[in-house]
Amino acid sequence: MDYAARREELWRRARERGLDAFLVINVEHSDGANLRYLTGFSGSTGGLIVGAQPLFVTDSRYTEQAGHEVVGLPIEETKPRWMAWLADKLGSLGVKRVGIGAHRTSVYVFQELARLAPGIEFVPQMGMVEDLRRVKAEEEIERIAAAAKLTDEGLRWIVDRLAPGQTERDVALDLEVWFRRHGAEAVAFDLIVASGPGSAMPHYRPGERKIERGDLVLFDIGAQVDGYCADLTRVVAMGDPGGEAREIYRIVLAANRAGLAAVRAGKSGKDVDRAARDVIANAGYDDRFGHGLGHGVGLEVHEAPGVGPTSEDTLAVGNVVTIEPGIYFPGRFGIRIEDLVAVTADGARVLSSFPKDELIVC
Amino acid sequence: MDYAARREELWRRARERGLDAFLVINVEHSDGANLRYLTGFSGSTGGLIVGAQPLFVTDSRYTEQAGHEVVGLPIEETKPRWMAWLADKLGSLGVKRVGIGAHRTSVYVFQELARLAPGIEFVPQMGMVEDLRRVKAEEEIERIAAAAKLTDEGLRWIVDRLAPGQTERDVALDLEVWFRRHGAEAVAFDLIVASGPGSAMPHYRPGERKIERGDLVLFDIGAQVDGYCADLTRVVAMGDPGGEAREIYRIVLAANRAGLAAVRAGKSGKDVDRAARDVIANAGYDDRFGHGLGHGVGLEVHEAPGVGPTSEDTLAVGNVVTIEPGIYFPGRFGIRIEDLVAVTADGARVLSSFPKDELIVC
Repeated sequence: MDYAARREELWRRARERGLDAFLVINVEHSDGANLRYLTGFSGSTGGLIVGAQPLFVTDSRYTEQAGHEVVGLPIEETKPRWMAWLADKLGSLGVKRVGIGAHRTSVYVFQELARLAPGIEFVPQMGMVEDLRRVKAEEEIERIAAAAKLTDEGLRWIVDRLAPGQTERDVALDLEVWFRRHGAEAVAFDLIVASGPGSAMPHYRPGERKIERGDLVLFDIGAQVDGYCADLTRVVAMGDPGGEAREIYRIVLAANRAGLAAVRAGKSGKDVDRAARDVIANAGYDDRFGHGLGHGVGLEVHEAPGVGPTSEDTLAVGNVVTIEPGIYFPGRFGIRIEDLVAVTADGARVLSSFPKDELIVC
Repeated sequence: MDYAARREELWRRARERGLDAFLVINVEHSDGANLRYLTGFSGSTGGLIVGAQPLFVTDSRYTEQAGHEVVGLPIEETKPRWMAWLADKLGSLGVKRVGIGAHRTSVYVFQELARLAPGIEFVPQMGMVEDLRRVKAEEEIERIAAAAKLTDEGLRWIVDRLAPGQTERDVALDLEVWFRRHGAEAVAFDLIVASGPGSAMPHYRPGERKIERGDLVLFDIGAQVDGYCADLTRVVAMGDPGGEAREIYRIVLAANRAGLAAVRAGKSGKDVDRAARDVIANAGYDDRFGHGLGHGVGLEVHEAPGVGPTSEDTLAVGNVVTIEPGIYFPGRFGIRIEDLVAVTADGARVLSSFPKDELIVC
């Protein structure tokens, strides 16, 4: 990863906005993804000054780790009162206008820095690093593809051993452990295994419910590999699910394919959403698809650009997004089919490969 | 849990500060512990208005969950543009000065609310909910005790099967799975299993190193049960560790006991730290104990009060803190012994029960 090039581009954009420096502060994971993107550092606490004299800072817990992970930057160890230390450091650099991320900096840190460094103006910035992260380099897409492949393989493993009587919670934990034993540094989010009526809730939390014969079982899962996330949803049936579920599956699959077919550079997130939503609406289920079609995926599982009815984003080469239409019948069942797709110069590359042509019956 | 009493106390304190309401905003876990403390809600996103007309708000993903978990409060569902919705809602309540947590609210949310509700003054508050959380009710201490008991049991389970050739990472994952299969909703933090020279790093991340005969193996672990965390450190030896390690173990144990003996209401965090630190200093190792003696534990594994050389806190009945002195020799080995202790009316109650009288040899 060319972290130095990312920092240079951020510094170029900061100068354009009349800033003397840009400050990233990650305290106990508060801004972990942005700091990792700019430096490769994966610890819970550290900071970065981007500017004429760039600098990486962390505390004594992470000095050794930073020495391994952070290349091409001086590394300094903050003192216990790290905000006072940082204010002094910025003072000694002679900077006057310092950008700081508005989304990931707390009111407390912002006010405290302003108090400790009265000669410096701290200027909240909206999404400066997040904007850089939208467009993935080829090696980032390869990492996401690796996470997607591991996710496909994990789903194959767990589906092959799925049986009535297993609890959702145990199935989710088994799958998480499989991911972590097979190269995932973590799961990209709390894995969702939703059976029967639970499949109708888009953000279900797996519980003690036992999977029964006749259930649909929805898996919304993702491994995280080398920092990068995957996100995949498939629904399988435990025994014959009946004709209605098969019919709804076909509609959602058609919507998923229409959404994927609409993905290309220059299209708005709104238009891609509409391509899939129209399929569901034409089948008479527009009121059963209550969420947006998808979202960007990278170092975080939800990032820019958005793909939904209120999205203001336009797709660009290097974006990686989910396409995940669904139809839900509260109290009964739901079906969602989600793939990861990268926007390429000549269209799109689908990164998920778990079969979806038919509703799999276990 | 008497959530209503907590909200009333917060509202009383808010009025004392001239506030018309206090706002808690939890977006994707940004303020999860405070919101859970005040309402019992355990989802990733929700909000609370404390005031004359209290209100719980969440989005459509969590309406059903909030219906189960949140008692004694009206629940409303925010619209997709939730900050605009919230600004309108506050406007309709007629409030003029609204407190908001400075540590857990982002600059973005703060500025956006101020922009959307120009008639309302949002006043950042330092630690108002966190201060309430310092003093645990008896039923909270019982939950922490349950988490501590499960943590003790898990350590017993893993130590009984510890063997040379196992990687730190696999041991940590096995233990995490054991906790989650035996009643933990999660681990309280990423479990630390540090073998050989890794034991000298207080915040080690378990890696691919294989445990060898002659190693010390440091476990810094904790289960989370019903929201509440435990935190326990023990060191065991894989085969005979030699006389130096046994000697250091005895010193750290004496420091641990001196720290525990010093815990009582009215003592400063500084004094408790000194009681343990003096033991290590008198043995000639003051430069080998580089971190504070302990920290509060509750819904979060690090919370108030602090127990360290720079702590400004004074212990009170209902506080639960760790006592965790250590001696570290970088590149060689380290020993830390950590217990959880609750401050009671007549002294202290140690919640950790895993044996520590002698260095356990596996």
